[in-house]
Amino acid sequence: KPVARNMAGNHIVKYNMNKLQASSQAASHSEKVLILTPLARFYDEYWENLVALSYPHDLIELGFIVPRSKEGQQALEKLDRAVAKTQKGKDKFSKVTILRQEAEDALASHSEKDRHAMSVQKARRSAMSLARNSLFLSTIGPDTAWILWLDSDVVETPHTLIQDMTKHDKDVLVANCYQRYTNDQGKPDVRPYDYNSWVESQQGIKMAESMSPDDIILEGYGEMATYRLLMAKIYNADGDIHEEIALDGVGGTALLVKSEVHRDGAMFPPFPFYNLIETEGFAKMAKRLGYKPYGLPNYLVYHYNE
Amino acid sequence: KPVARNMAGNHIVKYNMNKLQASSQAASHSEKVLILTPLARFYDEYWENLVALSYPHDLIELGFIVPRSKEGQQALEKLDRAVAKTQKGKDKFSKVTILRQEAEDALASHSEKDRHAMSVQKARRSAMSLARNSLFLSTIGPDTAWILWLDSDVVETPHTLIQDMTKHDKDVLVANCYQRYTNDQGKPDVRPYDYNSWVESQQGIKMAESMSPDDIILEGYGEMATYRLLMAKIYNADGDIHEEIALDGVGGTALLVKSEVHRDGAMFPPFPFYNLIETEGFAKMAKRLGYKPYGLPNYLVYHYNE
Ligand SMILES: Nc1nc2c(ncn2[C@@H]2O[C@H](COP(=O)(O)OP(=O)(O)O)[C@@H](O)[C@H]2O)c(=O)[nH]1
Ligand SMILES: Nc1nc2c(ncn2[C@@H]2O[C@H](COP(=O)(O)OP(=O)(O)O)[C@@H](O)[C@H]2O)c(=O)[nH]1
Ligand SMILES: [Mn+2]
Ligand SMILES: [Mn+2]
Repeated sequence: KPVARNMAGNHIVKYNMNKLQASSQAASHSEKVLILTPLARFYDEYWENLVALSYPHDLIELGFIVPRSKEGQQALEKLDRAVAKTQKGKDKFSKVTILRQEAEDALASHSEKDRHAMSVQKARRSAMSLARNSLFLSTIGPDTAWILWLDSDVVETPHTLIQDMTKHDKDVLVANCYQRYTNDQGKPDVRPYDYNSWVESQQGIKMAESMSPDDIILEGYGEMATYRLLMAKIYNADGDIHEEIALDGVGGTALLVKSEVHRDGAMFPPFPFYNLIETEGFAKMAKRLGYKPYGLPNYLVYHYNE
Repeated sequence: KPVARNMAGNHIVKYNMNKLQASSQAASHSEKVLILTPLARFYDEYWENLVALSYPHDLIELGFIVPRSKEGQQALEKLDRAVAKTQKGKDKFSKVTILRQEAEDALASHSEKDRHAMSVQKARRSAMSLARNSLFLSTIGPDTAWILWLDSDVVETPHTLIQDMTKHDKDVLVANCYQRYTNDQGKPDVRPYDYNSWVESQQGIKMAESMSPDDIILEGYGEMATYRLLMAKIYNADGDIHEEIALDGVGGTALLVKSEVHRDGAMFPPFPFYNLIETEGFAKMAKRLGYKPYGLPNYLVYHYNE
């Protein structure tokens, strides 16, 4: 924990950075967690899941960044109401910061189909990077130990999400983001959603070598087969939920980061960084800084199904 | 200015990022300036100069990061005393944050000769990058409009430094860092000190092309002639102090940055970024983000002379 001391009427604050722990016993060491959510759409299920997280809420700060679009405005109103209600009750969080983006939403339409069209991905993920950077740069404090990136459409996680993930004591750790749906037999089933968590392949390396430094490689598109090992594909329903794999790219749906990784300068590159951007570029930057990203293939969180 | 509103007993803070101005009329718009100094050595002249800055002190926050070395410990003690004294008086600043670095000082010796040996530059400037990143990432707030990077051995600047520099309304702006000395004729004279502010050359571009991505180009070393246009070399004592030139690399001795540049993710790369690191890599990153660095060749600030 940081050593904060106040002198001369609150005007001086001192922190010993080396006493700032992010450890496998986060809760019992009272480690502060900052949950950050870029939020263009508000889902009640997301909020209910957030409020149900069992990590001590007095150790949790929340931060949101909302785009300056009509959709963003609607989401903001719902968020405002939810925050006001929760902060009056026994489940209140230690602090909530809501930022409104300068720029317009990068996307005209937020339907899943339009969002995922390959042609809009570069501009879109670049705008998302700027939003994520503004968000953590405006909210990270000298006493933040962990940052949990949690997308606003992650509607279901284990209530012990923070304890489960911090327990691994990794610099960067991502859960496997799936989606519930009804299968052909009319039965409830699950399927992979986020393809941004992967292990680099020979093909991926060759592809980057033949590209201009301004191009980006996108994962999850048939047009651009990388043959990377995708974490989404190796979920084993019978496996140990705490199984770990080392990763080269990570997604941001449920991504836990030791704050020192961000504090050393790892951000979400809005420009191609080794032909990667946003969360995948972040993983590369964390690696360049000497940190190691991991994933939990059998630990599922669920994305909203539109 | 950001619109901050508090609800539910200080638990919720809202900011409108687009209302956060950094303009040419900084003081009259009450724009908040965060002065950041990595500090391994403390000079009374630095502190006196800082306290004498005429920008309203209630709009200035200070942030320091001090290394965990014997020299750092001594500097910290002096800093502590200076801060305590100033914060009791009429010149007090709105907030002071002091961080202690996790890691040991990267340098065994801080003599100018040892500091500047080419062989130690990569490790040293990489460590400086980490210190600078921790510092701004722990102190930047959602209402910070400008960040002024000011080295602890910059012992003399115009008292109107902040007004003079913000007036240019540039994303990134660096003053020309010189040094006072006694010349061969025994007369007081000035000479260039910081060579990190430059305009890229054909030779520099060629050099980078022939290098591995892990190598760095260092400025100001005969062994590695880049033929870049160095801002240090074009100071004109008779010229307009407000003359501007566009730059590709910047030094950090007295460097003013609109906070949105950092907030978008521009940091000090501790790894070679386009074969550049630290402040020079920062300029490149700012450019990749669409911002434009400038310098003031005729506006001098003075580095301590050991
Ligand atoms: N601040 C902000 N958040 C956004 C924007 N677009 C999407 N988001 C949020 O960013 C996260 C990821 O975006 P999303 O569209 O769900 O990505 P996808 O599920 O990979 O298609 C979600 O939490 C969204 O609510 C935007 O323009 N600005
Ligand atoms: N926190 C921290 N500051 C340092 C360290 N080394 C130097 N500094 C400070 O960083 C700034 C630039 O370093 P300096 O040694 O003066 O660089 P030079 O003048 O280019 O040789 C000065 O303000 C130093 O006090 C370090 O290891 N940690
Ligand atoms: Mn989503
Ligand atoms: Mn110096």
